[in-house]
Amino acid sequence: MKLNVYLAGEIHTSWREEIIAECEAQKLDITFTAPVTDHGASDDCGVEILGAEEDKFWHDSKGANLNSIRTRKAIKDADVVVVRFGEKYRQWNAAFDAGFAHALGKSLIVLQMDEHQHALKEVDAAAQAVCSTPSQVAKCLSYVLTGQLG
Amino acid sequence: MKLNVYLAGEIHTSWREEIIAECEAQKLDITFTAPVTDHGASDDCGVEILGAEEDKFWHDSKGANLNSIRTRKAIKDADVVVVRFGEKYRQWNAAFDAGFAHALGKSLIVLQMDEHQHALKEVDAAAQAVCSTPSQVAKCLSYVLTGQLG
Amino acid sequence: MKLNVYLAGEIHTSWREEIIAECEAQKLDITFTAPVTDHGASDDCGVEILGAEEDKFWHDSKGANLNSIRTRKAIKDADVVVVRFGEKYRQWNAAFDAGFAHALGKSLIVLQMDEHQHALKEVDAAAQAVCSTPSQVAKCLSYVLTGQLG
Amino acid sequence: MKLNVYLAGEIHTSWREEIIAECEAQKLDITFTAPVTDHGASDDCGVEILGAEEDKFWHDSKGANLNSIRTRKAIKDADVVVVRFGEKYRQWNAAFDAGFAHALGKSLIVLQMDEHQHALKEVDAAAQAVCSTPSQVAKCLSYVLTGQLG
Amino acid sequence: MKLNVYLAGEIHTSWREEIIAECEAQKLDITFTAPVTDHGASDDCGVEILGAEEDKFWHDSKGANLNSIRTRKAIKDADVVVVRFGEKYRQWNAAFDAGFAHALGKSLIVLQMDEHQHALKEVDAAAQAVCSTPSQVAKCLSYVLTGQLG
Amino acid sequence: MKLNVYLAGEIHTSWREEIIAECEAQKLDITFTAPVTDHGASDDCGVEILGAEEDKFWHDSKGANLNSIRTRKAIKDADVVVVRFGEKYRQWNAAFDAGFAHALGKSLIVLQMDEHQHALKEVDAAAQAVCSTPSQVAKCLSYVLTGQLG
Amino acid sequence: MKLNVYLAGEIHTSWREEIIAECEAQKLDITFTAPVTDHGASDDCGVEILGAEEDKFWHDSKGANLNSIRTRKAIKDADVVVVRFGEKYRQWNAAFDAGFAHALGKSLIVLQMDEHQHALKEVDAAAQAVCSTPSQVAKCLSYVLTGQLG
Amino acid sequence: MKLNVYLAGEIHTSWREEIIAECEAQKLDITFTAPVTDHGASDDCGVEILGAEEDKFWHDSKGANLNSIRTRKAIKDADVVVVRFGEKYRQWNAAFDAGFAHALGKSLIVLQMDEHQHALKEVDAAAQAVCSTPSQVAKCLSYVLTGQLG
Repeated sequence: MKLNVYLAGEIHTSWREEIIAECEAQKLDITFTAPVTDHGASDDCGVEILGAEEDKFWHDSKGANLNSIRTRKAIKDADVVVVRFGEKYRQWNAAFDAGFAHALGKSLIVLQMDEHQHALKEVDAAAQAVCSTPSQVAKCLSYVLTGQLG
Repeated sequence: MKLNVYLAGEIHTSWREEIIAECEAQKLDITFTAPVTDHGASDDCGVEILGAEEDKFWHDSKGANLNSIRTRKAIKDADVVVVRFGEKYRQWNAAFDAGFAHALGKSLIVLQMDEHQHALKEVDAAAQAVCSTPSQVAKCLSYVLTGQLG
Repeated sequence: MKLNVYLAGEIHTSWREEIIAECEAQKLDITFTAPVTDHGASDDCGVEILGAEEDKFWHDSKGANLNSIRTRKAIKDADVVVVRFGEKYRQWNAAFDAGFAHALGKSLIVLQMDEHQHALKEVDAAAQAVCSTPSQVAKCLSYVLTGQLG
Repeated sequence: MKLNVYLAGEIHTSWREEIIAECEAQKLDITFTAPVTDHGASDDCGVEILGAEEDKFWHDSKGANLNSIRTRKAIKDADVVVVRFGEKYRQWNAAFDAGFAHALGKSLIVLQMDEHQHALKEVDAAAQAVCSTPSQVAKCLSYVLTGQLG
Repeated sequence: MKLNVYLAGEIHTSWREEIIAECEAQKLDITFTAPVTDHGASDDCGVEILGAEEDKFWHDSKGANLNSIRTRKAIKDADVVVVRFGEKYRQWNAAFDAGFAHALGKSLIVLQMDEHQHALKEVDAAAQAVCSTPSQVAKCLSYVLTGQLG
Repeated sequence: MKLNVYLAGEIHTSWREEIIAECEAQKLDITFTAPVTDHGASDDCGVEILGAEEDKFWHDSKGANLNSIRTRKAIKDADVVVVRFGEKYRQWNAAFDAGFAHALGKSLIVLQMDEHQHALKEVDAAAQAVCSTPSQVAKCLSYVLTGQLG
Repeated sequence: MKLNVYLAGEIHTSWREEIIAECEAQKLDITFTAPVTDHGASDDCGVEILGAEEDKFWHDSKGANLNSIRTRKAIKDADVVVVRFGEKYRQWNAAFDAGFAHALGKSLIVLQMDEHQHALKEVDAAAQAVCSTPSQVAKCLSYVLTGQLG
Repeated sequence: MKLNVYLAGEIHTSWREEIIAECEAQKLDITFTAPVTDHGASDDCGVEILGAEEDKFWHDSKGANLNSIRTRKAIKDADVVVVRFGEKYRQWNAAFDAGFAHALGKSLIVLQMDEHQHALKEVDAAAQAVCSTPSQVAKCLSYVLTGQLG
């Protein structure tokens, strides 16, 4: 068995690298994908490539639409979608991706902070696992693939 | 033509009533559905009916799962999902519903505040209309049904 | 909102009647369906209509296939599938119906006995609510439809 | 032609190994997958990775949800799902997997004991083949792939 | 419960009328649909409405395409598709409809002649019931709806 | 049998009214839907309701997105989509609707001008009927519903 | 581009070998699959592996069900289904496969005899190409892959 | 991540080669597919392989149907569909492909001329990016794959 895992959500800390490193250390057969994690590129890609916009709304619209090509492709190809909710920002795109993935029948793993437990109850109810550390996510993926605990 | 419209998101202001009233005044053939909007009932329904939980996580899980029966049914039956992002709370469930609805091919109308424009860019990019007042939502629905502008 | 509810599983006690009675007392807008609950008719329908079989396997096969026309139609039309696991028999058809319904994205409510908790853990994990009395099922349905607790 | 075959159900006897050995002896191009077959790991994976639970229900719920990531992935990727019903336990998860697989249009092969014939009639009616020995299952797979008998 | 039943296949004997009469006598809540059963109209509809063709192939193509609007609509709306194979003609359209209906997950009832048993084995294997008289078909439908045997 | 028919494409001549009148004269049980046929409203609906745009591209984008709520709803509900290609304009939206409808498995009837035959060959190849007058379209619908020729 | 092509229908002449040879001579990147073409094995596989049946109906049912595992797998994996109608037998399974494939959105190529033209009109109307020689089928596949005519 | 990209639409200029060259220069992992771009072959393939037709309509119908095998296969396999609208011809097939692709949930990139902006507003509203040069398309694909701006 192989797994395709999409790592959705927060892009300002190293949680992706931690999960990937722990899985690679175990030589697990997992292909990881992610959104564009360069905040500046992600915000400006639309206008950089397709032409400037005066109105911030359309500046953002062009970028979000272009980014969605990557995001939708990656979610559709994924077996498991890990969604990270971090400390900062409103992160509605993370929750949007979780809803999108759930409707497509993807397995969901949520990586969250304790103080967000109540606010994430609807997302958690749709998830197969709720974690508080990247290492727990890696252990979930390892168990799913190998059937062995630690 | 008739429309089924699900009114998702914020439950602390009267935006649903305003949209419904404006549509009813025009005698539009629309069936509106909504999540449970009694905050207390929505939070406690799981433990009230199915038995108490000591751990807040499972208290919330039971409630969110029970509420999801209503939410998923309503979204699946809807032609249009209106998602309201308000002032308070993190509202990840609203964004989750939007992602779920979008994956099912439902039309999305977002009702948002100006200060949330950048944070909602991914949701807006998936939407057919982005509004800032309930009256604009009602006008969209009226136009879609009647083909006439005011 | 209206609900279509399929009452799957055990056919030897009055649990269906109890749920229906409690919902009717509240005048809830629910259409209930059920498998054929006459055990003899359900077992013999195939050979009675389509001709006798000497081999018990084909006797049962004809009946099960004929019954599946009703069962699949009812599950496909349902918003919610309630699955009852009772005291007697192996009840693999109940679990089969639950898996079938879950794959189609139907909401599941399990009605089970305490001693079966561990054996039903995979079914329960797919369910939106796990009940131990018919009255709890009725209360779930009432809450989903009305948004009100008792 | 290649086949992906998921071997669902009973985890306490060597039926999986027997089928795989017989197919490997014929060098058939089949990829076999299975649930986690270490009973202890399967029961405790949830709490081991995600934290202990006092209540047995949630202990089991966490484990069953985590295991479902593997099970659903494997069934979705499978061309054929073989479901084994053995001597012990209630095995509702096996029947649940069979119903889930059937709804997704997967071919089903049931491996059962004679005394369960009547109890499995609904599952058998949905199956393409009903076997009583692992060798019969292997012969079915060999025939499907090679088009040759023995 | 209500049923939509499409009566596919042979158009030269009164089998449809017999099934409908027997079901109406029992006041069963069934909506029956059928292909165009006027052989001449069915053959010539394309050229009559859309213009003559010199080549018989295109004459037939225009008619078959026009008839397919009705056939596909009726099969998609049906819960049960009854397919009658009669004495005359090659009846490939009947088998084509059966395969089409089966792929859409519709229940199949085959009404056939004894001498066709071997030739219909693939169609029968996909069916929920195989009948040799219209009355058996009516009894199947009656049982599916009412749960009672004659 | 009833039919839902969506009348897509050209909005500057009376072809819709002609089809509807001919069908109503025969009291056919057909529900007709159409895009917004007021050219001005259709072009300006977005900016009228949701706010002005300086850039023509976004002016059009807002309108087209809002109109798509109606169009997609109507096509999804339709059994048959009639697509009219007229004399003027490029009519890419008509061809887009045809492709969208075809991918959803809807029956297509094309109403075209002789001089467009070669340019429409890909659309015609996906259609069940190709007509040159509104009356032919009405006759097709009448035949599909009643099974009778004139 | 690569193609998966399923060669359905008649198993008593060398049409499959002719198509494959002509495509291989051009080194086209096509994977061909076919049903079991050993008539005896195809008829008896069920009882040989799963146990004898006295009744010819169940003898055939077991075989047809087992063969359907291969057939459905191959059709689901195919881009193009070629269906051959030959001189002998009723060949309802060929038409059934064509209907099944068409409902799944597969491209159909029919290989038929002139005298069957009228009887195959419904199948032909669903096809992308109708051929009278294996060489025409090979030329169609070659053109689809290479975009070049002979 | 890899991408499958279908290049639909206009076949008389070198826009496909420009996009492919720019992507290959960056060694992007993209598989490009396209319709048959030899205008003569595309027009005449049907009659060349399957036999001449006197009527231009059937000449074109045979060709369009044969070409659709390639087109549908390529669109179904694609992650992104780029649709080019050029200077000449009516190009309804390009818009048809865009509608077909959109209904299947494919990402759309439109490559258009400024003077067509208003006429393409419905297609553009369904697109993730609207470009005016082949280089912009290549930059979009490069960003989607690499997450980096030039």
